[in-house]
Parts: sequence; structure tokens; C-alpha cells
Amino acid sequence: MANPVNPPRGMRDFLPADKARREHALGIIRGVYRAHGFDEIETPVVEDWSRLHAGLGGDNEKLSFSILKRGITSEALAAAAEAGDVEQLADLGLRFDLTVPLTRYYATHRAELPPVFRAIQIAPVWRAERPQKGRYRQFVQADIDIIGEPGLLAEIELVTATSQALAELGLQGCVIRVNDRRILFGLLAHCGFAPETHDRALIIVDKLDKIGVPGVVEELRELDAEAAERMGAVLEGAAPALAGDGIPLTREAIAAVLPDGAAEQGVENLSALGEALAGALPAGVEVRFDPTLVRGMGYYTGTIFEVAHPGSGSSVGGGGRYDGMVGRFLGQDVPAVGFSIGFERVVDLIELPETEGPDAVALVHDADVPFGELLALKRELVDRGHRVRLERRQKNMKTLLARIEEQGFSRFANVRSGATSADELEFRVLGS
Amino acid sequence: MANPVNPPRGMRDFLPADKARREHALGIIRGVYRAHGFDEIETPVVEDWSRLHAGLGGDNEKLSFSILKRGITSEALAAAAEAGDVEQLADLGLRFDLTVPLTRYYATHRAELPPVFRAIQIAPVWRAERPQKGRYRQFVQADIDIIGEPGLLAEIELVTATSQALAELGLQGCVIRVNDRRILFGLLAHCGFAPETHDRALIIVDKLDKIGVPGVVEELRELDAEAAERMGAVLEGAAPALAGDGIPLTREAIAAVLPDGAAEQGVENLSALGEALAGALPAGVEVRFDPTLVRGMGYYTGTIFEVAHPGSGSSVGGGGRYDGMVGRFLGQDVPAVGFSIGFERVVDLIELPETEGPDAVALVHDADVPFGELLALKRELVDRGHRVRLERRQKNMKTLLARIEEQGFSRFANVRSGATSADELEFRVLGS
Repeated sequence: MANPVNPPRGMRDFLPADKARREHALGIIRGVYRAHGFDEIETPVVEDWSRLHAGLGGDNEKLSFSILKRGITSEALAAAAEAGDVEQLADLGLRFDLTVPLTRYYATHRAELPPVFRAIQIAPVWRAERPQKGRYRQFVQADIDIIGEPGLLAEIELVTATSQALAELGLQGCVIRVNDRRILFGLLAHCGFAPETHDRALIIVDKLDKIGVPGVVEELRELDAEAAERMGAVLEGAAPALAGDGIPLTREAIAAVLPDGAAEQGVENLSALGEALAGALPAGVEVRFDPTLVRGMGYYTGTIFEVAHPGSGSSVGGGGRYDGMVGRFLGQDVPAVGFSIGFERVVDLIELPETEGPDAVALVHDADVPFGELLALKRELVDRGHRVRLERRQKNMKTLLARIEEQGFSRFANVRSGATSADELEFRVLGS
Repeated sequence: MANPVNPPRGMRDFLPADKARREHALGIIRGVYRAHGFDEIETPVVEDWSRLHAGLGGDNEKLSFSILKRGITSEALAAAAEAGDVEQLADLGLRFDLTVPLTRYYATHRAELPPVFRAIQIAPVWRAERPQKGRYRQFVQADIDIIGEPGLLAEIELVTATSQALAELGLQGCVIRVNDRRILFGLLAHCGFAPETHDRALIIVDKLDKIGVPGVVEELRELDAEAAERMGAVLEGAAPALAGDGIPLTREAIAAVLPDGAAEQGVENLSALGEALAGALPAGVEVRFDPTLVRGMGYYTGTIFEVAHPGSGSSVGGGGRYDGMVGRFLGQDVPAVGFSIGFERVVDLIELPETEGPDAVALVHDADVPFGELLALKRELVDRGHRVRLERRQKNMKTLLARIEEQGFSRFANVRSGATSADELEFRVLGS
């Protein structure tokens, strides 16, 4: 029988050590993004049901949690039953990503925001997925987006800010794989795929990791046998470099794996990106061209990114340009590009650093120490910058000391009645 | 017509300046509570529907948002319509407070937590209230609770930690009003109210602010006319002190406003609390006895608190001891006491301090400055600790400069092609 006091299925409680690790990581990400000129915003966790089901969220729309209208009458309930449509009883839903709320937010507040708006959103989202290892129904995303900048400077600022955040989190060996949707479509056209087959072709190419080049070619044949062979040749040509050190983001290296004249616009874009980023990324982060990178969401229009890390089987972040999406709410095109850090994966990879500054100390006191004395000692130490925990002495001191050490306290002192200053206490290092 | 792109009714988006103010305040609260030895935890925003409707949330239960089960069949929908019970379609709900989730969390994780568990929870809650000024359907609470400590040390640590948080937020003139449920019940018994009328009597006393002593006495008469007169005399006796500087939390002052021998246990408790807190509270925070303080929730068993601030019409925080509540999930009594800061009210009262350390600067650049040069300048300044915003030069520079000043940037420099170090830039102070 399930424990009746567990959190809801697929969701997690965080114990103090986990929560501290999460807050530490969020603080680093937030600080780097702010330093890079981005502004943090917040939206409610719920959006109107209709907005969450407007076709912008892809498959995620089907995974959204719906919220019942308040004060539903028995007539309305009967009508829903009659129509066999339970969703008409819902008016709100929990957001399944931060992009749909951001586009709504931008439409609401555009007049109050700068023409080029650099947004930070660090917040939970919800998806009613079948719970499995590493997949949760509530999880945090850390997104930055630049809305209103059509040029490459937006991509550059996103990549440099994200790289620095990953580096300051201590993630070594991150590789940012980059592609351009226009290269993908140009490549498909060059190989001979008819435009109406492109979306299906991309879904197949996206399976490369799982089914390999032969598998991709076989599935592509169903769309166009000759084009599939040509595409296969391109993929085969890129394979050795992708399996090795990757393809540098330079004009020469990019051109070398693409057929002549395919997707000039995209090649131009990525070459310029590579040039601007050369020497600008922190140690531990590299950028590489990957002509097989697709990204699932249909709304991407240009540059796309994905971050790989040797410690994680799947990507730890990704994003891209989505110039058409914000405009749907405004009736005019607004350029936009975003980069999301997969916070739940990242937080599992980082080490908590040693705390800097005054340490955390425990005051182990007898039951008869007057509260006023205890309080004065505690306050004195808090004022000096320490984290201070009061602990009543217990019979098994070994257990007590092991526990507080495990909780991150580094020293303790025994407090008996009569101490008037923390200077009189004898602190001992825990675990020594 | 309602703007079709607004956030859901009664909920708010936060613009960058608002969000920065909120994060600043949350950082202070979190830092003080951690220094005082409390541990931050987190629970999912949703809990099982049945847990949110188990009678622990008082009137708030009726205000909770319910979440539809996924994959509801037409049979289940028809059955709900048949029963006229839409809530049987819900399995989860958004939490309406942080106390119900905390008690569930404690029951789930008790074995992994210290015997005396000091919890911080800073998180949003949701209530489907009729939206009105200052009341929102999503709002943040900042709670600390101590579970497992039966003695007064718990109250003392809560009050000192909360006081320091309020003081560091810059709130001057906070008054923490204190009472003890046992004093209230003792007083009612002493006046002659029959035990079965006590709960109703407290609801009436709680209206003192609105209807005054005569109004309270009149309503109390319906319960017991003689007892009502005696209670009226006590309230009249306390009124001048309450209207003036308040009643100090000393044995003499407390006893002076209570009939002899009423509620000894409560008087003992509050006297000891007052003694321990004497001289221990930061400047700008005072503690006062208020025999008329009731607090709405039925689960309080001992000490109760409420924080008043001259800048706010209603309380900016409150809490109390609720020894019986955690035990409902565990089948054994567990002592607990909590203090909640009404974050939404507090954040409206504080001033954002001047930023310390390196300032925020804007680099106003021509369109032809190579990205690599811009990026190198930005990085150099970020590395020195500045917040850096790139801004493309526009025709109306006055508008641009006014905007970035408003956004909290203090200096700007014009960047033209060729600059190789930030030292070559001429920074000018904005607004001068």
C-alpha cells in the first residue's frame, strides 16, 4: 500500500540539504544572468486554459494539469457530461513551460518593457507525464529570452550568459551544439525532399541518436527514396567528426560537411556566431556545429542550441530562435530567442562548494541554561555572521554530533549556565 | 471588455523592478532565518485533494483550487453529474497555506529530520478569494516553524528570528502583540462562560477592532449575560493601555489587566517569554501583551502572535503554537509552533536600498561595432562585478538614457568600433 503521507505522485519534497543545494545553484544562475543585463520577471503559475491549449506547446499541451472552475453548477456539470467534455469545466491550468507565459506576459506589458527585452524566468512548470527516473511532474526551468532583437547579438548574449552560468556552477566539459533551422530545411530541399515532407523528415532525422544513419535513411525513403540516399551521404560525411571532437563553428568546417550552396543564410548566421564567440567562452564550455541537431518544438525559425554534458545522458539545456511566436498574440512579428537550462539535471551534477565566511556552529546546551543567556550567545554569534543552531544536550552525544555535522555545521560548543559572551565558549571542530 | 492577454483574474505578473524588490526582500528573510539555525524546505505546490479538505485549513479549504484528474472517462463524468459532485473529478489541489503541507511533510520525512526541526518555507499559496485591493489569488508566505520542541525556547527563537528579519527589511515601529490561548479560555471560564460557548465567545471577542467593547458585550450577552458583563469589565480595564503604548510583557503588567487567578499557566508562559525577550529584540521591534488577541484558526493551543506595523492597516505577520495538529497524521502528539510573515504586505512597505558594490552600467553602441569587440568589453565589466546592459544607439538618446536610468542603471558609456578595453570608455553618470 502506498504511504498515505507521500507527496503527490511524481512530485518531490526537498529535504534541507537538497533545498540548500538547489538555492545555491539558483543563486548562481540568477546572479550571472543579472550581471549579463537580463531582468528577472515572474508570472502566475496558472494561465487561462484556452491559452495553454492554443497550439504553442506541442505535445506538452496534452500533459497540462487543468483547474476546475469555482462554483460549478449542477447544470454546468450535467452539460459537460452530456457533451462528454470534462475540460469545459476547467478555466485555468498549470503552465507546462515558461515560453507560453512569457509570450503572454510580453503582450500584456509590452508598453512597460524596453524595446529589446532580456528576460530571466526561474520557476517551476508542471507536466502530467508518467513518472520515471529523472522525470518529475513538477520541475524547475531556468530560462533567458531576448525579445525584440532580430540580429545575432541576441544569440551571442544568450550563449555567453548561459556558458558563464554553467561554468560558475562548476560544470566542466559542456558542449553547446548549434544548428540553424534554415540549414536543416535548406539541406532537405537540396537533397530533393518536397517542402511538404520537411516537417516529417525532421522528426526522422531527430531519431539519429537512437536508430543511426541507416535507420534514418530507411525511414526517410518512405518520403523520397532518392532524397533519402543524398541525405544519408551528408549524415555519413558528418558522422566521423560528430563522433570525435565535433565540428568547429567556423565557416570552413561548417561548409565542409554541407553540400555546396545548401542553406547559405544559415551558414552565414552560424559562421558569424562562431566568429563572435571565438575566445569569448569560459573554460570548460565549447561550442560545436551539429547539422543533425533538430530540437523538437515546431516554433523554431533560426539558430537552435542544445547543451551536452558528459555526466548527463540527455541534454542539460537548449533553446533557439522563435521569431513567429510572440507575434501571434500581437498581430505583428516580434523577433525572439531563448535558452533554457534544464535545472533538475544540472543540480544533480554540481558539487556544493565549501561555505565561505563565518561557519555554521551549534550551541549544545543543558536544559537549565536560562533562555536569556542562550539567546544572548546566539545573537552575538549571528551578529558576527555565523549560522547558529541551538541543540539541547542529549544522552547520546555521539549521535547528536554526527547529526549536526551531517547537517552542515562545522563546530560546536557546550554551553552551561553562566556564560556571558561567546568568547568564553570552547568551540570544537565536528568530526575531528 | 477585458484585455485578452491579462494574467488570470486576481493574479499578478511582476515587472523587473517589482521582481527585484521581491527577490531582495526574500533574500533578507531567507538569510536571517538560516542564520538563526532554520532549514529551508520545499514541498510541491499541490497536495492530495483529500488532504486539503481534511478540516485543518478552516475557511481556506473552501477557497482552494481543485485540479482535474487526468484521463477522466465519460462514465466517471456522468457519475459525477449524477451525484451532483464535481469535486469527485479532482484528485489534487493548489495549497491554500504552508501549514497543511508542512504537517504532511513532517509525517513523510520525520525519520530524516532532527528531533527539533526548524523549518523555513518561503513559497506561494493560492486562494480563490474575490479579488480586491491588496488581496490576491496567488501570494507568497514566509513561514518558520519549530516542530518537536514543547518548551518556550521555540517561541523565543521564532520571535527573535522574525524580529530580526523585520528589522533587516527596514520596517521600523513593528509591534508584536502576544497572547496565549490558555489566557483567553481561562478568562472566559473565570467570567463564567460555559466551556461549550468558548469557541463562539472567541469569535465575538475577535471582532473588538470593528465593534468596540460595547458591541462585543452585547453579542456576548446572547451566550451569558452575567459573564458578558464581567468580560466587558476586563476589556474596559485593558482598553486604555491597549489604545496607548500597549501592555508590557511582564508579569506585573499582564496580571494587572487580568482578574486574579485567571489563567495562571498562560500568565506564567507569557511572563517567561517577556523575560527572555527583554533586551533581545532589535531596535524598531517591540513586544506587547494583548489579552484581546484571538487569531482566527482553531488549531492554536498556546502562545499566539500578531505583528502590527504603522504603515499597514492589517497585520504583517502572525502565528502561534499548534501542538495538536501535526499529531493528526502521526497518531501521537507532536509540539509545534510557527510564525508567518505576510510577505505581500511587507514587500509594499520596504524601500530598496542603494546597491552596494560595482554598479550597473549600460554600453550604448553603434550598430557597426563588431560583436566580438562588444562582447569583450561586456565580459571585462562583468568580470569586474558590474551588471552590464548592451543598448543599441537610437535617434532619441534622451529617451534611451531616461529609460535605462529608470531601470536601475547608474552609468553609461558610448561604444564605438575600436575600443579594446573598458578602461578606454568614458562613463557618464545617468541623470546628471
